[in-house]
Amino acid sequence: MEYLDQLGQRAAAAKYELQDLAAEKKTAVLKAAADAMVSQTARILKANDKDYEIAVQGGMAAGMLDRLKLTEVRIEAMAEGLRQVAALEDAVGEVMESFERPNGLHIEKVRVPMGVIGIIYEARPNVTADAFALCFKTGNAVILKGGRDAFYSNQAITEVIRETLSEEGITADAVQLITNNDREVTTAFMKLKQYVDVLIPRGGAGLIRAVVENSTVPVIETGTGNCHIYVDEDADIEKAIPIIINAKTQRIGVCNACESLLIHEKIAKRLLPELGKALKEKHVEIRADERVKELIPDAVDATEEDYAAEYLDYIISMKTTASVEEAVAHINRYNTKHSDAIITENKEHAGYFLKMVDSACVYVNASTRFTDGFEFGFGAEIGISTQKLHARGPMGLKELTTYKYLIRGNGQIRE
Amino acid sequence: MEYLDQLGQRAAAAKYELQDLAAEKKTAVLKAAADAMVSQTARILKANDKDYEIAVQGGMAAGMLDRLKLTEVRIEAMAEGLRQVAALEDAVGEVMESFERPNGLHIEKVRVPMGVIGIIYEARPNVTADAFALCFKTGNAVILKGGRDAFYSNQAITEVIRETLSEEGITADAVQLITNNDREVTTAFMKLKQYVDVLIPRGGAGLIRAVVENSTVPVIETGTGNCHIYVDEDADIEKAIPIIINAKTQRIGVCNACESLLIHEKIAKRLLPELGKALKEKHVEIRADERVKELIPDAVDATEEDYAAEYLDYIISMKTTASVEEAVAHINRYNTKHSDAIITENKEHAGYFLKMVDSACVYVNASTRFTDGFEFGFGAEIGISTQKLHARGPMGLKELTTYKYLIRGNGQIRE
Repeated sequence: MEYLDQLGQRAAAAKYELQDLAAEKKTAVLKAAADAMVSQTARILKANDKDYEIAVQGGMAAGMLDRLKLTEVRIEAMAEGLRQVAALEDAVGEVMESFERPNGLHIEKVRVPMGVIGIIYEARPNVTADAFALCFKTGNAVILKGGRDAFYSNQAITEVIRETLSEEGITADAVQLITNNDREVTTAFMKLKQYVDVLIPRGGAGLIRAVVENSTVPVIETGTGNCHIYVDEDADIEKAIPIIINAKTQRIGVCNACESLLIHEKIAKRLLPELGKALKEKHVEIRADERVKELIPDAVDATEEDYAAEYLDYIISMKTTASVEEAVAHINRYNTKHSDAIITENKEHAGYFLKMVDSACVYVNASTRFTDGFEFGFGAEIGISTQKLHARGPMGLKELTTYKYLIRGNGQIRE
Repeated sequence: MEYLDQLGQRAAAAKYELQDLAAEKKTAVLKAAADAMVSQTARILKANDKDYEIAVQGGMAAGMLDRLKLTEVRIEAMAEGLRQVAALEDAVGEVMESFERPNGLHIEKVRVPMGVIGIIYEARPNVTADAFALCFKTGNAVILKGGRDAFYSNQAITEVIRETLSEEGITADAVQLITNNDREVTTAFMKLKQYVDVLIPRGGAGLIRAVVENSTVPVIETGTGNCHIYVDEDADIEKAIPIIINAKTQRIGVCNACESLLIHEKIAKRLLPELGKALKEKHVEIRADERVKELIPDAVDATEEDYAAEYLDYIISMKTTASVEEAVAHINRYNTKHSDAIITENKEHAGYFLKMVDSACVYVNASTRFTDGFEFGFGAEIGISTQKLHARGPMGLKELTTYKYLIRGNGQIRE
């Protein structure tokens, strides 16, 4: 496709300029973009109004409308996000390893930008500024494909950033937005292997599946979370209930929320009546097996689909188990390799759980809600990887870089 | 597909046993497999004879036949490969990072096996033993899909290994061979996402392209190499010629061989007549631009395709350039992101080249033939990655692992 080919060529040209930018310059540009975002608030809000009106007329649900809506406060928060990324340490140029071979070759492994990053995302316009900031800070050119519903908002935000880049003497093609919303263009973007080094989908399970199935560009899968908590026979109930309530209800629609609960049968009688009450107070529907239903009369039957579900809602599945081994086997069968927790005071059981559960983040006695770049202290987050290649769990700046080997010799040839 | 589903399930079951094996046990098993390989030489040779006979009848080319053929010496070399991997340091279990958050959460980043690795490869039966050794050493279960031409050889080698595993009290499903050679089975294998964590193709450009296009499992691309050498105006000719001859002719059919040569126009007159003679002695055909042809009369015209070609043959493309910038632009346009070298005594030009060339390995004054796990001192090699995700350049044991975060708390919940 001619259109994408031109975008790709411009991004590829931009990446050579960006890989070499001084850390201070990147910081200055990000601060200038933050200032521009604030000074251009009226312009961004006007574009957002247009999206909002179309969405209202199209009958968009209230929750989605709220995600789409920008306000002065939200634009200030976007600008603050840019400033926060500006203040982070530069990841590019770090010498990760350095060694000399017996033949005198000197080898350095150096952290470098990926090159061109593609990001496909859904309706939240704040992702536009956020994704630019993280990619720019790591010396990458970025091509964005935002959701159709936020089209005018994304366009306005991208324009403000591109104007800032030009004013700062930097190629505006550091960020490009795909403005053609045809489905074939999006599919072709997933195959733009010649120019795009990595593709990161940010959105729901359907978007991620579509990208994985269609892309020939390497993908980092993010953000599907069927997260479990297993309450061991040796759990401290005083810890278990607050952790479960927090993991399930502190924020409902996020990937690190708890969706499924396993309970050792020996602790069921002591735990479940009180837990049932606490969940009921938070209006959480319980879908469970027979044993749980005996102890929590409000609970309804769980199906096989329930154990596999990422509800993102006020629903939780529950099941009793006879051992930590059975709990781990259930988790490894149904989880999405995101985050799972055990509540126990038994070190042996904790150790077994930590070792055997196949997830990016495995917890003992803490809420799964901590799987987050900021909570981990990375200062930023591009997403939570649920695959094992390249990055696992919260991805910060370093995860947007790769490395190359620089080899210096003095005429060495191979025998 | 029922057949692949069963293979996948068995591999998934095996991975939990393997992830937890003690380093000494893995070493012992690999040594036992090496001994079994030697003691079962007659059985393996008999199977190989069958493949060889079919190949001869099918009219296989001499070079391919040689790659397929096993001998006592080659089986001993395979066994020696297993022993070498056995002797390497264990990569699994390393605590890569460890930190405590202000809320008291203790976070460890620990190196763990990938889980299940799929390897699709072409006719060389030694890859069977080699791939098993690297995957087993790193605690991974492996599913192999070898070339149809080496079917009986691969089956015999896999059986010998599986018998050894059983004798050592380890699940034989640590290694499984796909014995159904239907094309649809291979394609379905590339989509066995539920069980396979990473897919590594080992073979020619066609195989790699097919895997990239069809796979929904994350892929590590390996081994396509259109490697360049640029002879700068400030090159030392005494270094340049031996490096070029070595990189082009020391071994012809390998991915780190030099395929294309760029020459600064100011050094062309001093370099090319002598270089042309040296290449002629090695029977290398030269395809070049006008300026080169003036100085090497034997050279023929190069086309656009020549500059993009990975010949793997006694052919080299050549082009003169006006500057290091022009050379870098040409390389970044035509290379496969594998290995490229500059020959120069000019530090500034060397620095520019190292920084700007987008390749896994960038050399100054050395042969590109050093891009190799053994030459880098990794002690093993599963392939040379030409992508930027996860691993770049030579991949050793560490590149067959991932990490997980272990988070220990004391009842922490998120505010």
